[in-house]
Amino acid sequence: MSRRELRDLVRTQLQMLLEEEDLRGAKAILVPVQPADIAEAIEGLPEAMHGLAFRLLSKHEAIEVYEYLDYSVQERLIEELRSQDVRDIVDKMSPDDRARLFDELPAKVVNRLLEQLSPTERQATAQLLGYEADTAGRIMTPELISLKENFTVSQALERIRRLANASEMIYYLYVTDGARQLTGIVSLRQLVTSQPEQLMGEIMTRDVVFVYTDTDQEEVARLIQRYDFLAVPVVDREQRLVGIITVDDIIDILQQETTEDIYALGGVQSGGDNYFQMNLLEVARKRVVWLLILLVTNTFTGTIIKSQEDLLAKVVTLTAFIPLLTGTGGNVGAQSSTVVIRGMNTEEIDALGPLQVIGREAIAGALLGTMLGTIATIWAFFLQGQIEVAIAVGISLVAISVLASISGSALPFLFRLLRLDPALMSAPFITTAVDVLGVLIYFNLARVILKL
Amino acid sequence: MSRRELRDLVRTQLQMLLEEEDLRGAKAILVPVQPADIAEAIEGLPEAMHGLAFRLLSKHEAIEVYEYLDYSVQERLIEELRSQDVRDIVDKMSPDDRARLFDELPAKVVNRLLEQLSPTERQATAQLLGYEADTAGRIMTPELISLKENFTVSQALERIRRLANASEMIYYLYVTDGARQLTGIVSLRQLVTSQPEQLMGEIMTRDVVFVYTDTDQEEVARLIQRYDFLAVPVVDREQRLVGIITVDDIIDILQQETTEDIYALGGVQSGGDNYFQMNLLEVARKRVVWLLILLVTNTFTGTIIKSQEDLLAKVVTLTAFIPLLTGTGGNVGAQSSTVVIRGMNTEEIDALGPLQVIGREAIAGALLGTMLGTIATIWAFFLQGQIEVAIAVGISLVAISVLASISGSALPFLFRLLRLDPALMSAPFITTAVDVLGVLIYFNLARVILKL
Repeated sequence: MSRRELRDLVRTQLQMLLEEEDLRGAKAILVPVQPADIAEAIEGLPEAMHGLAFRLLSKHEAIEVYEYLDYSVQERLIEELRSQDVRDIVDKMSPDDRARLFDELPAKVVNRLLEQLSPTERQATAQLLGYEADTAGRIMTPELISLKENFTVSQALERIRRLANASEMIYYLYVTDGARQLTGIVSLRQLVTSQPEQLMGEIMTRDVVFVYTDTDQEEVARLIQRYDFLAVPVVDREQRLVGIITVDDIIDILQQETTEDIYALGGVQSGGDNYFQMNLLEVARKRVVWLLILLVTNTFTGTIIKSQEDLLAKVVTLTAFIPLLTGTGGNVGAQSSTVVIRGMNTEEIDALGPLQVIGREAIAGALLGTMLGTIATIWAFFLQGQIEVAIAVGISLVAISVLASISGSALPFLFRLLRLDPALMSAPFITTAVDVLGVLIYFNLARVILKL
Repeated sequence: MSRRELRDLVRTQLQMLLEEEDLRGAKAILVPVQPADIAEAIEGLPEAMHGLAFRLLSKHEAIEVYEYLDYSVQERLIEELRSQDVRDIVDKMSPDDRARLFDELPAKVVNRLLEQLSPTERQATAQLLGYEADTAGRIMTPELISLKENFTVSQALERIRRLANASEMIYYLYVTDGARQLTGIVSLRQLVTSQPEQLMGEIMTRDVVFVYTDTDQEEVARLIQRYDFLAVPVVDREQRLVGIITVDDIIDILQQETTEDIYALGGVQSGGDNYFQMNLLEVARKRVVWLLILLVTNTFTGTIIKSQEDLLAKVVTLTAFIPLLTGTGGNVGAQSSTVVIRGMNTEEIDALGPLQVIGREAIAGALLGTMLGTIATIWAFFLQGQIEVAIAVGISLVAISVLASISGSALPFLFRLLRLDPALMSAPFITTAVDVLGVLIYFNLARVILKL
C-alpha cells in the first residue's frame, strides 16, 4: 500500500468513526500513524471536524501534528480550542515554526498568543520576529548546543545528553569563545569517534561556513545544498552565534522559492499560500495584473496592424501568418528567458558573462530561425501559393527568432541589474518587444518583396 | 567577503600561480579552502590546467574534490591522469557517487574502471548500476550501519566508532533481523541520550518509513521532505535492507527535477547537462522540436484566418485584434496549466479532485474574462471607433478566457492519465486549441454582430 493510499484510508476511516461519534475507535486508528500523516488526514476532514479530531491526540502528539498543519487550519484551530490547550501547544512549538505561524496570523491574535508564552519562549519568538522576512534570522532556531574549546569529549557528550530534548539539531555542535563568538564546529560523528579525554579545541573544525542574520534565505539554501550540510550556524554582525538553520527547513524554502519562480514564469503572482485553497476572487486578483499588462502591450501590436490596413486590404492573405510569427517569436523568447532565469537561480550561468550568454542565444536563435524559416516558407507556399508572401514569412521568422533570443536572454540580466525579479518582469516585455518589432519587420519585408 | 567573491579570488590566484608554475604557492592557497570551493575553482580554470591543478591536492582531498566536479570535468580528468591515480580515487568514492559518474561515461571507460576497482567495491557499484535510472536503487548508498535488536547501547556505540569511516550517514542506525529484514530504526540522538545497558529492541522505533529499490526518486524526495528525515532506508522486495538515501542527495534531485519541470514549461528539452556548457547545435536540437510542433499547430489558426478572407477584406480592422485575442488566450491557458502542473508536483492539488480543479479554473477564467473583456471593449472602441467590432472583441475575450482556463487545467490531468509528462505535453495543445477555437468564436461573433 502506498503512503498516499494509507493517508486516504486513514482519513476515510477517521471521518466515518467521528461521524459515528466513536471517539475511542478514532483514537485507536491514529496510534500507529506518523504525525505528518495525521496532519494531512485532519486537513482532509470537513472543517467542523478539525477541532474534534485534534482533541483525540495526546498533548505530545498534538504539538507535533500542529506544526505540520497548514497555516489556515492552525489559525482556525486556535480560534476554536480552549485557550489553555493553545497556550500549551504554542509554548512547545520550536521558535522558528512559531515565528512563521505568527507571521501568518492577524496582529491581534499574535499579541494574545505572545502574552501566553513563558518569558524565555516569548523572548526567542519576539527576537525571530524582529528579523526581516525571508532572511536567515527569520528561519533560524535558537535551539542549538554550544560548547567551549576546553571541554573534553566526555564533557561535551554529557552536555548533549542534558540538552538534547531542547535542541532541534544535535548532530552539529558549535564552539564559542567567552564573547559568544563562533570559533569552531564539531560533529557528533567526530565526538563519538574521538577519545573521551580529547579537547574540543583539538578536534573542532575552525574553518566554519556561517551566514549572517540578514543573509537572504535563498542564499542560505544554496549554501547548504552546495556543501551537503545538515545545518548552518547563524551569527550577528559581531560574529556572535545566535542560531542555526537546519536542512529540513531549507528543503521547504527551496520548494517555496521554486513555486514562486514557476508561478512568475507562468504569469501568476504567488504569496506562499496554497493556490488550490484560495477563494476565486483572490485567484483572479493574482492573475489579472499580468494579463492587464499584456492586454495593454498587445494593443501596440494592434496599433501597428491597424496602421498597415492599406497593405492588408490589398493582400489579405498576409493576415493568415500573423499568429504564426508572433506565436513563434513568443515561444523562442520564452525558451531563452526560461533557461537564463533558471540558470541565474541555480548559478549554472555564472561560468559565462552576460554578453557571452546573449551572444550564444543570438546564434542559437539564428540556427532555430533558419530551420523554422525554411520549413515555414515551403509550408506557406503550399498553403497560399504566393511565393512572395512565403518568402516574407520565412525571412521574418529568422529575424524574429534572433530578436526573440536576444531580448529573451538580455532582459533578465537588465532586470536583475535594476533589482527587479527577472522571472516576474521579463515575459510581458519580451512578448511585446518581439510582437511589435516582428510584425513591423514582416510588413516592411512584405512591402519590399511584393513591391507595394 | 561573500563566498562567491572568495571563490573568484581563489580561482584567479590559482590560475596566476599555475601560469607562473609556482606549484608550491598554488598548493598553499588551497589548504584553507573547502572541497566544494576548490572544485568550483578548478572548473573555472582553462581546460588545460584542470589536470595540473588536480594533482596539487593530497590524495584524501582529491577524492573529496572529485565528487564535487561536473561530470564533464571528471570525465576529462580520467582521460588525462595516470591510471593508477584514477584507480585510487574512483576506488574511494562512495558507491552512489561512483554509480552516477559511471552513468555518464561511455561504456568502454566504465568497463575499464570497473575492472580496476577492488572486488567488494566493484560489487557495490555494479549492484547500484543494475537498478533503473531515477529509482531509489540508483541513488542509494549501501554504506550504512546496521544493528541487531539484542545489541546494547554501548555495543552499538562501539560498532559506530568502528564503522564510522566507511559510512556516509551515522546519525540513523538500522536494526535488522536474522534474515537481514528491516525491523526498526535508532537515531544517534537516541543512543547518546539512552543508558549504556539499554537494548536496541527497547529504544528503537518500529514504525519505519522506507522505500523500495524501484521507488521513483521524486517520490523518495517528497517522502524525505514530508517527514523532515536526514535519510530513508531502502529495502528490496523481500524487505531486506540494501541501502540508504541521504538528504543531501535529495536536495540535488529536487533541484534537477525542478529544472526539468521549468524547462518543460518553457518548451526546452532537458537532459541533466548544464545548458550553458552545451554546444549550440545541441541547444538548437533541444529547442527546435517544440517550436516545430507549435509551427505546425499554428498553421491551423492560419488556415482558419485564411478561410475568413471575405470577412477580413470587408472589415480590415478586425485583423488588428487577432494578436490580442490569441495572446490573452495563450496567457490565461499558461497560467492555469502552470498552477495545475506545479500543484501536481507539490501534491498541493491533491485535496481537490480533477473536476473540482477544472470547475474552479473555469469560474476564475470567467471572472478574468469579464474584467479583461470590459476593459478591452472600451479600449477597442476608443482605438477603432467601431462599437460592433469592440463588442465582438469583448465577448470573444470572455469566451476565450473560459476556454483557455478549462483546457489549461484539464489537459495536464488528461496527459497524466495517459502517462505522458503533463509539463512537456500540455502547452502546444493548449495554445492550439485556444487559438483555433478563439479565432473561430471571434469571426463568427463578428459576422453576427456586424450582420455580414
